Amino acid sequence: MTDNTDPLVLFMPSGRRGRFPVGTPVLDAARSLGVYIESVCGGRGICGRCQIEQQTGEFAKHGITSKSENLSGVNEVEERYARLRTLPPDRRLSCQATVQGDLVIDVPQDVQVNRQVVRKRAESREIIRKPATHLCFVEVEQPDMEKPLGDLDHLFQALERDWGYMNLRADFHLLAETQEVLRKGDWQVTCAIHDDGRGPEVVAIWPGLHNEAYGLAVDIGSTTIAAHLVSLLSGRVVASSGTTNPQIRFGEDLMSRVSYVMMNPDGREAMTKAVREAINTLTARLASEGGIDRSDILEGVFVGNPVMHHLFLGINPVELGGAPFALAASGAQHVTAHDLGLDFNRGARVYVLPCIAGHVGADAAAVALSEAPQKSDEITLVVDVGTNAEIVLGNKERVVAASSPTGPAFEGAEISCGQRAAPGAIERVRIDPVTLEPKIRIIGCDKWSDEEGFAEEVEAVGVTGICGSGIIEVIAEMFLAGIISEDGVIDGSLAERSDRIVQEGRTFSYVLWRGQVPLKIIQNDVRAIQLAKAALYAGVRLLMDKLGIDKVDRIRLAGAFGSFIDPKYAMVLGLIPDCDLKKVAAVGNAAGTGARMALLNTDHRREVEDLVRNIEKIETALEQKFQEHFVNAMALPNKVEAFPNLAIAVELPERKQLASAESGEGGGRRRRGGRGRG
Amino acid sequence: MTDNTDPLVLFMPSGRRGRFPVGTPVLDAARSLGVYIESVCGGRGICGRCQIEQQTGEFAKHGITSKSENLSGVNEVEERYARLRTLPPDRRLSCQATVQGDLVIDVPQDVQVNRQVVRKRAESREIIRKPATHLCFVEVEQPDMEKPLGDLDHLFQALERDWGYMNLRADFHLLAETQEVLRKGDWQVTCAIHDDGRGPEVVAIWPGLHNEAYGLAVDIGSTTIAAHLVSLLSGRVVASSGTTNPQIRFGEDLMSRVSYVMMNPDGREAMTKAVREAINTLTARLASEGGIDRSDILEGVFVGNPVMHHLFLGINPVELGGAPFALAASGAQHVTAHDLGLDFNRGARVYVLPCIAGHVGADAAAVALSEAPQKSDEITLVVDVGTNAEIVLGNKERVVAASSPTGPAFEGAEISCGQRAAPGAIERVRIDPVTLEPKIRIIGCDKWSDEEGFAEEVEAVGVTGICGSGIIEVIAEMFLAGIISEDGVIDGSLAERSDRIVQEGRTFSYVLWRGQVPLKIIQNDVRAIQLAKAALYAGVRLLMDKLGIDKVDRIRLAGAFGSFIDPKYAMVLGLIPDCDLKKVAAVGNAAGTGARMALLNTDHRREVEDLVRNIEKIETALEQKFQEHFVNAMALPNKVEAFPNLAIAVELPERKQLASAESGEGGGRRRRGGRGRG
Repeated sequence: MTDNTDPLVLFMPSGRRGRFPVGTPVLDAARSLGVYIESVCGGRGICGRCQIEQQTGEFAKHGITSKSENLSGVNEVEERYARLRTLPPDRRLSCQATVQGDLVIDVPQDVQVNRQVVRKRAESREIIRKPATHLCFVEVEQPDMEKPLGDLDHLFQALERDWGYMNLRADFHLLAETQEVLRKGDWQVTCAIHDDGRGPEVVAIWPGLHNEAYGLAVDIGSTTIAAHLVSLLSGRVVASSGTTNPQIRFGEDLMSRVSYVMMNPDGREAMTKAVREAINTLTARLASEGGIDRSDILEGVFVGNPVMHHLFLGINPVELGGAPFALAASGAQHVTAHDLGLDFNRGARVYVLPCIAGHVGADAAAVALSEAPQKSDEITLVVDVGTNAEIVLGNKERVVAASSPTGPAFEGAEISCGQRAAPGAIERVRIDPVTLEPKIRIIGCDKWSDEEGFAEEVEAVGVTGICGSGIIEVIAEMFLAGIISEDGVIDGSLAERSDRIVQEGRTFSYVLWRGQVPLKIIQNDVRAIQLAKAALYAGVRLLMDKLGIDKVDRIRLAGAFGSFIDPKYAMVLGLIPDCDLKKVAAVGNAAGTGARMALLNTDHRREVEDLVRNIEKIETALEQKFQEHFVNAMALPNKVEAFPNLAIAVELPERKQLASAESGEGGGRRRRGGRGRG
Repeated sequence: MTDNTDPLVLFMPSGRRGRFPVGTPVLDAARSLGVYIESVCGGRGICGRCQIEQQTGEFAKHGITSKSENLSGVNEVEERYARLRTLPPDRRLSCQATVQGDLVIDVPQDVQVNRQVVRKRAESREIIRKPATHLCFVEVEQPDMEKPLGDLDHLFQALERDWGYMNLRADFHLLAETQEVLRKGDWQVTCAIHDDGRGPEVVAIWPGLHNEAYGLAVDIGSTTIAAHLVSLLSGRVVASSGTTNPQIRFGEDLMSRVSYVMMNPDGREAMTKAVREAINTLTARLASEGGIDRSDILEGVFVGNPVMHHLFLGINPVELGGAPFALAASGAQHVTAHDLGLDFNRGARVYVLPCIAGHVGADAAAVALSEAPQKSDEITLVVDVGTNAEIVLGNKERVVAASSPTGPAFEGAEISCGQRAAPGAIERVRIDPVTLEPKIRIIGCDKWSDEEGFAEEVEAVGVTGICGSGIIEVIAEMFLAGIISEDGVIDGSLAERSDRIVQEGRTFSYVLWRGQVPLKIIQNDVRAIQLAKAALYAGVRLLMDKLGIDKVDRIRLAGAFGSFIDPKYAMVLGLIPDCDLKKVAAVGNAAGTGARMALLNTDHRREVEDLVRNIEKIETALEQKFQEHFVNAMALPNKVEAFPNLAIAVELPERKQLASAESGEGGGRRRRGGRGRG
C-alpha cells in the first residue's frame, strides 16, 4: 500500500510518476506504472537489461528533489554484475536499486550488455517497445519421483511462478529439445515466449542465461528486398541491408510475374522459392554484419505489395492479375518462420501486415502505420512510388487509399538512357534557360559537371545513364528552360539557338551529355514521364475528390524514389499537388519503418489492422473521374489545378492554350518565345 | 421472449425441457437447452445431420401431450432433402420443423446421411459429443472491387455471421488453398473449425457441402497398436483395427527399446519413424474398411505408456530408463498431424493425453478417464496388465496410481510353453483334484478336450502352447488340486498317484497335454507367475495402504489380458485382492475407450487433465513396503490378506505353515495330503 508520504518517483523520458514505499525495487516501481524496462533474468541481477540512471538535483518543475542518497547504494549483486560484464558508471540495475526517497530516474534506450555490435546511424523514429516475444530466465525444479511432473511441465510451472504466464504451450520442436537443454543449463534456462493474441507459447529455449533476441523487419519490393535486423531487447537496429529480388528473372514488373505464373505450372513455386532464398541469404548477411547468430532471430515482420505478399506466402497471385483483383487473404497473417522455410530460430514467429486492397499492399499499410495520417488534423498525402504508386490520403476524420499504375518510368525503365540508381547515373540536372547548356551531378561524385576536377573524378565510372530522380529533374528543367512545352513537346525551333536540340525523324531530342556514351532525352522519354506522372497525379486527385478537398496540408514521399527526388521538381512536373514546400518531406523507407514498428510493438499491429479495416479503398479502374484527371494531368505541371506554392518556389513558364490540343505533335513549333516572364 | 403459455418441448434421451414460442425451429430450441444436435449446413436443410423424431401420445409422467399436429408439416426443403438423400419415415429435419404445440422430441444417435458404412458392433459406451472440430457450411461473399476484402477474410466474415466464430485464424496451408476452393464451390464451402482452448482456427475447407468428418482414437501399446475410426458427426465407430508395433524389432519390451536408443545414435529416430509409419498403414486400412477418405480424418487422439508416448512424439526416452524416470513432458499435448507426419487431412489436429508418471502413461490416464474412479463413492481398483501393470485406485475423495513391474510372464513370454493368444493356444484348464487329469480348451475351438469331436476339430491347428489366461488357470487349478503348494512348489510325491507329475532334475513338472508337442508346466513357470503376480499384488496393496483401506469395492480389469482371464482364477492366485466376484469385471480396451472419449468431447480432455493433476503418484521403487508386500505375495493366494469372497467361490486348500519358509524347495514333499477339506 502506498500513501502520499511515500517517496515520489518520476521516470523519464515517459514522465510517468508514482509514489512507492521505501525499499521498492525501481524495476517494480517502473512496471507498476507501465514504464517498460526489459528484464530477462526476472530480477536476479544477472542479465543486466534493466539498467537505469538516476538524475540528481532539484527538478522544480516536477516538484522533486532527487538526492543521490534517495537511491539505495550499489549492492553485491550489482558489484558482481559490473565485475563480470560492463556496467557504465552511473548506471544501476533497477532490479537491485531500491527507492529510498524522491527520485528522478532515466530509462536509457541504449543498454549494452554483450559484445559490441555494429552501430547503425540512429533511426529517426524511436519506437516504444512491447514486443510479442520476450526472454524469460527461470530456475526449474528437478525431476522428483514423488511428484513425477514432466520436465517441460516443471518449466511451465517456473514460468508461471516467476513470470505469471498461465496456460502455456510449447512449440512442437521443443517437446524433443527441452529435456536436454534443462540438463545442459543445470536447470537454469532462458525461454523465448511469444504471445500475439492466442495465448503464450514457448518458442525457444537456451541453457543458462540467454541475453539476445532479434527480429527482422522486411520490405519485399518487386525490385529490392530491404531488411532491418533489430534487437527485440533494446529496439536498436543492429544492421540494415538490401538485395535484389531474384524474381526479376521471371519478370521485371508485377504483371509480368503474374503472367509468368499463368504460363508456367511451376511458376508460383519457383518465385516463392526464389524470394524466400533471397531472404535467407540476406538474413545471413545481416546476422554476420550485426555479429549475431541466426538462431537468435525470433521474429520476422514482412510487408510487400499484394503480388509480393502472395508469392512470399506461397499463394497463387493470378487473381491479382485481373478484375476484381481479388486478394486471397487481406488480413494480417500469423505464421511460423519454419512454415515459410526461413532460417531463423526453429520456433520463430512471423507476422505479415494486412493488405489494403488488390493493388494496395501490406507495404502501403506499413507506410500508413508509419506516417499515421489518421492521427492528425492536417490532411496528409502519403505517396510511395514504385511501379505502382500507392497513395494514402486523409486525416483523423477519414482516410482513403488507392494505387495508380505509374509504370516503371520513374525507375528509369522506359527511358532511353535510363538506368537504376548506381554510380555513374545522373541524379541532378540544371539547364541554363538562356544558353540551354546543362550541368549535371552523378551518383558517386559530389561535384557539379562545371566544377573543377569533375572530369577527373568521374573518369573511372563514367557518366553511364540517368536515374529516376535525374529524369524528374531533367524534364522539369527542360520545361523551365522552355525546351519542352506545357504539352510536353520538345521545341525543335530551338535547334537554331543551341546544338543541344537535334532532330530525330519527326521529333527532336535534347543532348544532355556528350561523353563517351552520349546521353539524350528523346521525345518518347518525355512522353513516358508524362504518362507516369499523370497516372500518379490522377490517383492523388481522385482521392482528393473523394474527401472533397482542393489542397493537402502536407505531403510525405516514401520509398527510395521519394528520398532522392527534389520535391520542387516533382511539383514542377505536377507529380504531386500544390503544397507548401516546407511541408513536403521525404520519409525514406516508411514501409520499413512501419514493419519495424509492428516488429517491436504488438499495439502497432492492432493499430495497422484497425487502420486497414477503416481505410476506404478506391479502385482507380472503376472511377470515371480517373481517366479525366489522367488526361488533364498530362500537361506540365497539369491542367487540373493552379500551383500557388510552386509559383513562389520557381518561375513557371507562362501558361497558354495548349497547342497540342489543337494540332498534335507539330504544335511544338509554336512554342517559341513562350517562356514569357523569363 | 418465452412465457409459460408457450408450448413445452421435451428432448429425449437427455430429458431437457423448455418453453418456446410457436414457430421456433426445433433445432434452435434444442440448442438453447444445450441439447447437442449436429448441423453442418447451419439450418439450410441440406446436410441432413439434424434429424429428430417426434414421439406422439400422452406422456403423463412429463405432463405433455405430444400430438402430431404440434410439429409443423413437412416443408419443401425437407421434401427436397428426402428426394435427394435418404430421410427415413418419421424422421424430420429439426432446422425445418417448427414448434406448434407441446412436443416430445427424440434425438436419434444414429443419423445416416451418406453411403452405408460398415457397422461395427455397438460399443457399450455412448459418449456425449462435444468435439473440438466442427464442420460449418457457409455461403461466402464474392470479391468486390469497391470493398476489396481478401477471399479468406470474406470466409471469416461468413463464419462469424452464420456460426458466431470471432477472431478466426487459418491453418498455414489454407492461405494457398482457400481461393481456389471458394471458386470451385461457387462461393459455397464447408470449413472444419478446430478449437481446443486457443481460439477457433479453420483447419480444412471443401467446395460445397461436405458432410463427413472423422477422428482416430489410438492406443499405442508396446506390442500392439489399436485404433478406432470414429465419426465426429455421429460419434459412431466406423472401423476398428490393430497392428503389431513394428518397434518390436528394436526390442521386445520397453526397457530394451530404451536401451536400443542408448546404444544407437539413430535409434530414437528409427523407432519414431517405425511407429508413425505403422499408424499410417493402420489408418489406411481403417479408412478403406470404413469406406472413407483419409483426408476426412480431422483429428487424432493418442494414448500410450510413457516410452511409447515419447517415441511417438519424437522425444528421446532415455531418461525413462533410470531413476528418477523423468518424463520429458507429462501434460496433454496439442500438436498437428502434419508435425507428426501422419497422413490425415493436412490441417488435422492431434491431442495426446497426459501421462501420470514416469511409469504410468497416457494409456493409464485414458483408463482412469474411462473408468472414472474419482466419480464414485465406491473404492474402485483399475488394473491394466501389460509388461508393466498400471494400477489406479480410489474414489471421489482420493485417487492414487502406480505401476508395478510384472514383467512379461502374463503375456506368456517367460513361460516354457507360453505363446501369444492365437488359435491353438490353451486358454482354459480344469484339473480333476482326484485323478489330477486335466481338460483344456483352446482358442479357435468351442469344445473342451473331453467333449466329443474335440480331437477332429483341433487337428488342423493343433495344441501349440498356452496363452496368458491359460497360464493363470492352469497354475490356479494346479494349486486347487493340491499339485502345487501355497509356496508354489510342485509336489513330487504326487508322482506316485499320477504319471502327469514327472521329475526334471531337482524339481517336478506337470504334463498338461500329451499331443504331438507335449506341453508341460515346469517349476520355473510357476515361479515366473508367482513373481509377476506378487509384483502386481504388491503394487495394489501399496496403494491400498496409501488409502488406509483393507478391501476394495469393485475391480476393473482393463486390456486384452484383463478381458480373457477369469476373475476367479486371478483371485485364486492372489493377483487381485479379495472382492465380491460380482463386482469384478473386465472392461476391455479401456484405454481405447478413454481415447475415444477425449476424441469426441473436449470436456473429457479437461477432465482427464484435472484427474491426472490430482492423482497421487506412487513410485513403487521408493516404497519400503513394496518389497515386504512383494515377498508376502509370493505365496498362493498370498500371505497378506484373507480371501473371504474367494472362499465363497472356490474351495481353497487349507492354509498351513509354509514349508518352504523352513526348508526351501524340498518342502514340497511334505505337501502330501494337504488338500485337507477336499
